[in-house]
Amino acid sequence: MITSSRNNRVAAAKKLRRTRVRRQMGNTLVEGPFLLEEAAAAAAQIHEVFALEEDAATARICKEQGCSLLRVTPQVMGALASSVNPRGPVAVVSIPETPPLEPRDSVVLWDIADPGNAGTIIRTAGAFGFQVIATAGCVDLWSPKVIRSGVGGHFRAPPIVDLDPDPGVLIASGLTPLVAAAGASAPADEVVGIPVPVALIIGNEAHGVPGRVVDTPGVNVFSLPMPGGAESLNAAVAAGIAMYLRMNAR
Amino acid sequence: MITSSRNNRVAAAKKLRRTRVRRQMGNTLVEGPFLLEEAAAAAAQIHEVFALEEDAATARICKEQGCSLLRVTPQVMGALASSVNPRGPVAVVSIPETPPLEPRDSVVLWDIADPGNAGTIIRTAGAFGFQVIATAGCVDLWSPKVIRSGVGGHFRAPPIVDLDPDPGVLIASGLTPLVAAAGASAPADEVVGIPVPVALIIGNEAHGVPGRVVDTPGVNVFSLPMPGGAESLNAAVAAGIAMYLRMNAR
Repeated sequence: MITSSRNNRVAAAKKLRRTRVRRQMGNTLVEGPFLLEEAAAAAAQIHEVFALEEDAATARICKEQGCSLLRVTPQVMGALASSVNPRGPVAVVSIPETPPLEPRDSVVLWDIADPGNAGTIIRTAGAFGFQVIATAGCVDLWSPKVIRSGVGGHFRAPPIVDLDPDPGVLIASGLTPLVAAAGASAPADEVVGIPVPVALIIGNEAHGVPGRVVDTPGVNVFSLPMPGGAESLNAAVAAGIAMYLRMNAR
Repeated sequence: MITSSRNNRVAAAKKLRRTRVRRQMGNTLVEGPFLLEEAAAAAAQIHEVFALEEDAATARICKEQGCSLLRVTPQVMGALASSVNPRGPVAVVSIPETPPLEPRDSVVLWDIADPGNAGTIIRTAGAFGFQVIATAGCVDLWSPKVIRSGVGGHFRAPPIVDLDPDPGVLIASGLTPLVAAAGASAPADEVVGIPVPVALIIGNEAHGVPGRVVDTPGVNVFSLPMPGGAESLNAAVAAGIAMYLRMNAR
């Protein structure tokens, strides 16, 4: 039983809450039994698991992976986990390699800053079968908070994070960029059904998609009607609606 | 300039971060220039405003409302606001009265627990013109976090929080309850277009909509197809898709 968060292995794991350390080590933290199962099911490499108790499911995963199951006190768990009153387990997991870009329907996270939004878009992409591409300006998609909001989507559809998804790059890769913009004249239903793979670009929460991206030739702009008169939708909600419409139109 | 968070007015305002105190006093905290404008535009009663600087927009609102504008230090602002590095202003505002239930399209928050989800559903309802109804088991919809995620929706469509939205109550009020459920056979497009006012029930993040609600005669169940095979969507995303489909079908 590890009782101090100054324990070497706990201290090393705890550092993975920092973006820079995650990128250096190529590891992240995965919290909770559901996400641990998802990581194991996706054959992600699991290095060690910290748990309050040795429950059967966690013990089985550790045995299959040949990794240590380390029991810790609730206080140590609190230092490792990003949730409040964490029940664990918390696992140190290799960040999966970025998969190759395929010419199929994708959602592009353009400088998405909120961990909850980023994770929720990845979750929806997993549910609706979309490839995920992200700009370097996004929140770190492999942060524990984003992984938690992703509810397994990270392992079902690992995001492509090593590509600069400029419209020219997307078009050259066989994807037609689509952007939802306030005040665009083409309604969503007309645009999202086009019979080629699309890249739905979802813009930053405060600044949207940059004008130079929207104005690039070959980028299709559409609007989601908002009779309530509000200025905008939450980024993850807009992404969810656009992905749903696309999925149903194809 | 108020320099201590032990100042009487600051201490009283700070207590409004607690649900119990908000309910006792009938007041809440509204953060940031955009939400303050929305509250003022909706004729919500503004009691006092704490700000780092006396900018023109805040000064105008205080003058129109006849309320004090109190300058505070960044440290005091940090004690009042729920965001990180808050720029203010933070206003003490009366929680608007619950509007009467109308027989028009509504979204029902059924024990929604996450402040971000609750606020985002209220935001989407404001954008798409839906009435908002909430169970008593929801997170407090007038908490500063929920208001922030609502981005003004609270003032454009104040939630109805004093009604127990049991299916029987909804039906008696002229609303047809709809529930999105995994594995339901009726596809969304068929169900959401029915030519009567509907109440889209969005369930708790972990437990969904209770079985006894789903099974009540007169409740229509539909499914959102998920070819990716994931078990569920985020509650705010599911609500957004369902409201969008309904809005476009009516």
